[in-house]
Amino acid sequence: MTTNDLISEIRKKKSFLCIGLDVDLNKIPKHLLEEEDPIFSFNKAIIDETHHLAVAYKPNTAFYEAYGINGWKSLQKTIEYLNENYPEIFTIADAKRGDIGNTSSMYAHAFFNDLGFDSVTVAPYMGKDSVEPFLAFDDKHTILLALTSNEGAFDFQTKKIDSEEVYKTVLKTSKNWTNAENLMYVVGATKAEHFSEIRKIVPDSFLLVPGVGAQGGSLAEVCKYGMNKNVGLLVNSSRGILYASNKANFAKAAQNEAVKLQQEMQKIMDAI
Amino acid sequence: MTTNDLISEIRKKKSFLCIGLDVDLNKIPKHLLEEEDPIFSFNKAIIDETHHLAVAYKPNTAFYEAYGINGWKSLQKTIEYLNENYPEIFTIADAKRGDIGNTSSMYAHAFFNDLGFDSVTVAPYMGKDSVEPFLAFDDKHTILLALTSNEGAFDFQTKKIDSEEVYKTVLKTSKNWTNAENLMYVVGATKAEHFSEIRKIVPDSFLLVPGVGAQGGSLAEVCKYGMNKNVGLLVNSSRGILYASNKANFAKAAQNEAVKLQQEMQKIMDAI
Repeated sequence: MTTNDLISEIRKKKSFLCIGLDVDLNKIPKHLLEEEDPIFSFNKAIIDETHHLAVAYKPNTAFYEAYGINGWKSLQKTIEYLNENYPEIFTIADAKRGDIGNTSSMYAHAFFNDLGFDSVTVAPYMGKDSVEPFLAFDDKHTILLALTSNEGAFDFQTKKIDSEEVYKTVLKTSKNWTNAENLMYVVGATKAEHFSEIRKIVPDSFLLVPGVGAQGGSLAEVCKYGMNKNVGLLVNSSRGILYASNKANFAKAAQNEAVKLQQEMQKIMDAI
Repeated sequence: MTTNDLISEIRKKKSFLCIGLDVDLNKIPKHLLEEEDPIFSFNKAIIDETHHLAVAYKPNTAFYEAYGINGWKSLQKTIEYLNENYPEIFTIADAKRGDIGNTSSMYAHAFFNDLGFDSVTVAPYMGKDSVEPFLAFDDKHTILLALTSNEGAFDFQTKKIDSEEVYKTVLKTSKNWTNAENLMYVVGATKAEHFSEIRKIVPDSFLLVPGVGAQGGSLAEVCKYGMNKNVGLLVNSSRGILYASNKANFAKAAQNEAVKLQQEMQKIMDAI
């Protein structure tokens, strides 16, 4: 999917909502556990009830790997279902991969070609040659960790290299990599005050923003400092939507939560 | 496996060789492609012919994920084969994972409990709460990326935070995390001159050292600066051993390459 396709979809739906498909078998409705593939059944129901409200879905690979081969099958079925039924949706493999060149190529091949994701999250620690293999794919997107939403972000990301925070060094350095136009960045919502600084460095890039909801970030604050002329944001919510109810009506309850976020987003988009 | 078990095995075998099981179907002998599971057949043959020369095996998960569900099955069969037949071997899932707390817990569960690896490689970028869930397992080990063997290591890892390189900040900071005694570190062999500095910070920790062989690092140099009283090194070789031959005798050819490294290691161990 091209960035322009994503922007069109955001304008059409008046939404920049990304739904994180982080499925935990301990939290889904009990009746689904009798299904052949409970994780896929859950995802399918959530997707069917929310696809008109969201522009992106983001399965976190950890939640699938935790169930071994069956989990990997659920992931594969989920991305296939999305690609077949809702090709307008932007898909994100939240995998946080990153390795030396030939190994990163294997990961890129796995997520972009085999599974068919539009994008994958990548960790920056190993530098240029660990990220460029992901950038080499046309119309695929690499979402680099910049400033994450967790407490540990302050251990290294906000430390200063030559009087500038590590995450800013990551942003600036990565802009010079080959096919940098395929880069997006992860920036946590819990750090809204950093968004204006970040926009000075990457004014045009899309930012994937976790941390709204369960982790305490404010949508209004993020938009105030982080939005650009093409919106330029994908705001993720996982637990707040997925586990709105664990009863038979769970998918409708998820839809209700997604509606709330979409309406808040529409209000913000209409106001600018 | 405890660290003492690993040290005993190193002393017994006079070897600190780790063999990287990075299996590429384009590089293995053609006749294996007719087998039901070519990757596992290849690994089994390599392991059977080298297990007396190596103390650790390190499958890189990218090479398995690249083959989807079949690849994941090959990985599972490989670790099961190792645990059943060679329980004295230290196993490393070279996965370079790392995510927010609840997600890292899922990864830790997947690699330690479900797959049964002794250790997993983890990226430090997201800080303390992204790593501590891995450290919470008794007799399991978390191998944190410090200074990697690739060119991109110079993009961020060797930049200075308060006049000290990022990788040193990672070493020092991580020493204070809960269960830090379960930490080991990745330090690339291509940077032998850094080992004496690293040993000042983590004198007792095991260092997993990629980059000997194909990537150009020198075993003698690494040992000169990096060895401690318990050896404290796991030196990895992948391509140099795995692809010594692509004929019917590939496993014996791999053994010959492993013998060369083991003998070099024995000589170094005998000399100290």
